[in-house]
Amino acid sequence: MQYRTIIRITGLLMGLFSITMLPPALVAIFYNDGEGMAFIKAFVVSLLLGFCLWYPNRYHKADLRTREGFLIVVLFWTVLGSIGSLPFIFANNPDMSWTDSFFESFSALTTTGATVIVGLDDLPKAILFYRHLLQWLGGMGIIVLAVAILPVLGIGGMQLYRAEIPGPVKDSKMTPRIAETAKALWYIYLFLTLACAAAFWFAGMSAFDAICHSFSTIAIGGFSTHDASMGYFNSPVINLICVVFLLISAINFSLHFAAVTNKGFNLKVYLKDAEFKVLIAVQLILTAICFFVLFQTNIYDSAEETLDHALFQAVSVSTTAGFGTESFHSWPLFLPMLLIFSSFIGGCGGSTAGGMKVIRIILLVLQGSREMKRLVHPRAVFTIKIGNSVLPDRVIDAVWGFFSAYALVFIVSMLALMAFGVDELTAFSTVAACLNNLGPALGEAASNYATLGDGSKWVLLITMLFGRLEVFTLLVLLTPTFWKN
Amino acid sequence: MQYRTIIRITGLLMGLFSITMLPPALVAIFYNDGEGMAFIKAFVVSLLLGFCLWYPNRYHKADLRTREGFLIVVLFWTVLGSIGSLPFIFANNPDMSWTDSFFESFSALTTTGATVIVGLDDLPKAILFYRHLLQWLGGMGIIVLAVAILPVLGIGGMQLYRAEIPGPVKDSKMTPRIAETAKALWYIYLFLTLACAAAFWFAGMSAFDAICHSFSTIAIGGFSTHDASMGYFNSPVINLICVVFLLISAINFSLHFAAVTNKGFNLKVYLKDAEFKVLIAVQLILTAICFFVLFQTNIYDSAEETLDHALFQAVSVSTTAGFGTESFHSWPLFLPMLLIFSSFIGGCGGSTAGGMKVIRIILLVLQGSREMKRLVHPRAVFTIKIGNSVLPDRVIDAVWGFFSAYALVFIVSMLALMAFGVDELTAFSTVAACLNNLGPALGEAASNYATLGDGSKWVLLITMLFGRLEVFTLLVLLTPTFWKN
Ligand SMILES: [K+]
Ligand SMILES: [K+]
Repeated sequence: MQYRTIIRITGLLMGLFSITMLPPALVAIFYNDGEGMAFIKAFVVSLLLGFCLWYPNRYHKADLRTREGFLIVVLFWTVLGSIGSLPFIFANNPDMSWTDSFFESFSALTTTGATVIVGLDDLPKAILFYRHLLQWLGGMGIIVLAVAILPVLGIGGMQLYRAEIPGPVKDSKMTPRIAETAKALWYIYLFLTLACAAAFWFAGMSAFDAICHSFSTIAIGGFSTHDASMGYFNSPVINLICVVFLLISAINFSLHFAAVTNKGFNLKVYLKDAEFKVLIAVQLILTAICFFVLFQTNIYDSAEETLDHALFQAVSVSTTAGFGTESFHSWPLFLPMLLIFSSFIGGCGGSTAGGMKVIRIILLVLQGSREMKRLVHPRAVFTIKIGNSVLPDRVIDAVWGFFSAYALVFIVSMLALMAFGVDELTAFSTVAACLNNLGPALGEAASNYATLGDGSKWVLLITMLFGRLEVFTLLVLLTPTFWKN
Repeated sequence: MQYRTIIRITGLLMGLFSITMLPPALVAIFYNDGEGMAFIKAFVVSLLLGFCLWYPNRYHKADLRTREGFLIVVLFWTVLGSIGSLPFIFANNPDMSWTDSFFESFSALTTTGATVIVGLDDLPKAILFYRHLLQWLGGMGIIVLAVAILPVLGIGGMQLYRAEIPGPVKDSKMTPRIAETAKALWYIYLFLTLACAAAFWFAGMSAFDAICHSFSTIAIGGFSTHDASMGYFNSPVINLICVVFLLISAINFSLHFAAVTNKGFNLKVYLKDAEFKVLIAVQLILTAICFFVLFQTNIYDSAEETLDHALFQAVSVSTTAGFGTESFHSWPLFLPMLLIFSSFIGGCGGSTAGGMKVIRIILLVLQGSREMKRLVHPRAVFTIKIGNSVLPDRVIDAVWGFFSAYALVFIVSMLALMAFGVDELTAFSTVAACLNNLGPALGEAASNYATLGDGSKWVLLITMLFGRLEVFTLLVLLTPTFWKN
């Protein structure tokens, strides 16, 4: 293992990441909200720490193999998540414990969007802006991870994308392609964010709210500047804008990349993609079920209002954004549970969404039906195809394995929470919400995670990481094989 | 599909099964409890129905292929479950609805042991005896199914047993071997039941209770003649006898078969078996956790009493028997949840236990660790071994597929229950208890299932069947491929 090269890279990352502290510092000065010093301190500390890691190892530039790739990816999220907690630790308002600071930072960076802060509306603007900025950067990190790195590492069948998707990643060389790919994705990401912010602003949000919510929408993070979340604006137009941009962000960014580069904008790229079609179908079905049940129970005054809320919540939860409207918790429990289960599906691979990803669900269904065909015709040979190409056994095993590992992490985390005395509904829903990087949960954590114990918060923080790192990236580090030479 | 042969066999089965009604009728006469007529009626109806199916098709004796095997297995459980409900429908005491009668019958025959009857202590003896008899017959059916039929059908990787276990089933011809195997297993099953009944009787149970509880112990069914279940006897000796016979019944009966036939009794057969060792390890770990937590919370007066209850409940729930002691529901919720999760593991394949079976958990763990080794060394080839032989890919796929299908049935059933308005804890625990053929649940169904709605009961009845038929046997019947020629 090339430890010194890895430490050098980690140091560089920290130095780079320290710049993140400067825009919130400017916001603090602009609004004169008194929290500027927290960000200046955080900037200095992270820059110094980064320098201390980088300087002694600055000449170590060994070539990295796949194995080191796992370690760097995990370090990327854990180190930045830890550094990211500094402003919360340093801030006077809100006055947060170390556990809460780490939880909030990891929740933001993994785009989970579970919060331990109560009273968002009265928070200093700099802190609000920083939370959204963290989500936005996390979202960018996820896309690079999912489009450029995980396919190379071969996590959970994602090597599939290497050959299949008409995207930017086609060969298995890691370093040169990543930079190039990241740059292209960055432009798309930035463009979508600007478009989303402009739309929110035209629809009546303040400039500050528009920017913050565009960050958390495109990152499918779900943070809001208000305790009431999107419900604060009480605007069907804003809800609809949010839905549209969530759906765009839940699509594989390789598709956006392919659609844009072919001179002009080529919509056919999307319509040819099976994962995109299933994503849209899932949203339509969920919206229809929510609409039907809500219409029966007469919670809203009109069919239009029912449709507005049904569509918004279905898309918000199932794409794992987790934005709320005021009335969500008065829905019959079946609907929140259905939507939480749907968050296990999540968005497409290579998007900012969480969950197991639509592509894996498609593969699980195809593999399951192959198993049944095999039972009926034990001697026949059945292949599984995506588009025109046959799936290798390696990918099939990886997808089954991913599903089982996901279930294992879910069960262990849920039992751990219950061992800390958390009730069943809260344990179930918070673990689902964190593992799927969804955010809001039910029971005790229905409005926020503030009242959970410290032990529970650390378990959930680790659960978020497992979800964001597609389980295996983190799990593989716990095996002896990984550390053997 | 050889429909007329299948109908002939179903008719024969029904005729044979009608005999089941006679012993309870004798019990009714012996105790003069007034419910004899219900069983006479049920006997006549099932004999006649069976005759009507058999007579027109009595010359149809076509050879059956694998595909017809699935249909016969499913018919076996659904038809006998339906016929088995007749005495409950005909009885005056208890006065049960059709839904409740079907639920009780299917719950008994699948050895789930969930009950909708309140006031077991005051029930006519004939009804009590009949419930236990149904479980006992169900247990026998499961062993034949698991040892002789499922390996041939290749459900969920169980073809593994065909070559691996030193048991009676070694070739793939279905019909002749089944009868021979069934006879040998029957003797073992009968011997264990007699031994268990004698032990219970010596330990202080009435002869009636001893026989009834030996039936539900060996079948790992969990029915009792008392509302307080085993807690009624309040005897550490009886608890221990129950634990020992539950463990014996949770072992693959092929092992018992192999241990007995080698002239004398060969204990080494067990110690060489990986599945047996893991089963025992799981029980020890669960008992230790329960003991530790209970000892901390001071629910019982002494360490001995704590150990008695910890061991009994750990084994009772994790082998999927579901016998209770009075104090179980006063345990901290974490322990019941842990044990309910452990019931997903269940007993060994080829036993009367439910759950996913220890062997599949072993394979899932082996397969999962292979996935991680593959991530670290993408070019290396890793095989999975059980004992000395390498597992074929076909078995690996089947086990992954089994796990996913099990999870799917769990989620769909749970959502269906919640759609009927059942709360989260009840839905979660009843679906787990029925899918794993465990029986008792938590929440609303903590003592019995009586207060659940009819819709919920039918969902749970189907869930029991899915569990007992190892999901795929039933699922495959829902695919178009199965019915195509
Ligand atoms: K989220
Ligand atoms: K049971």
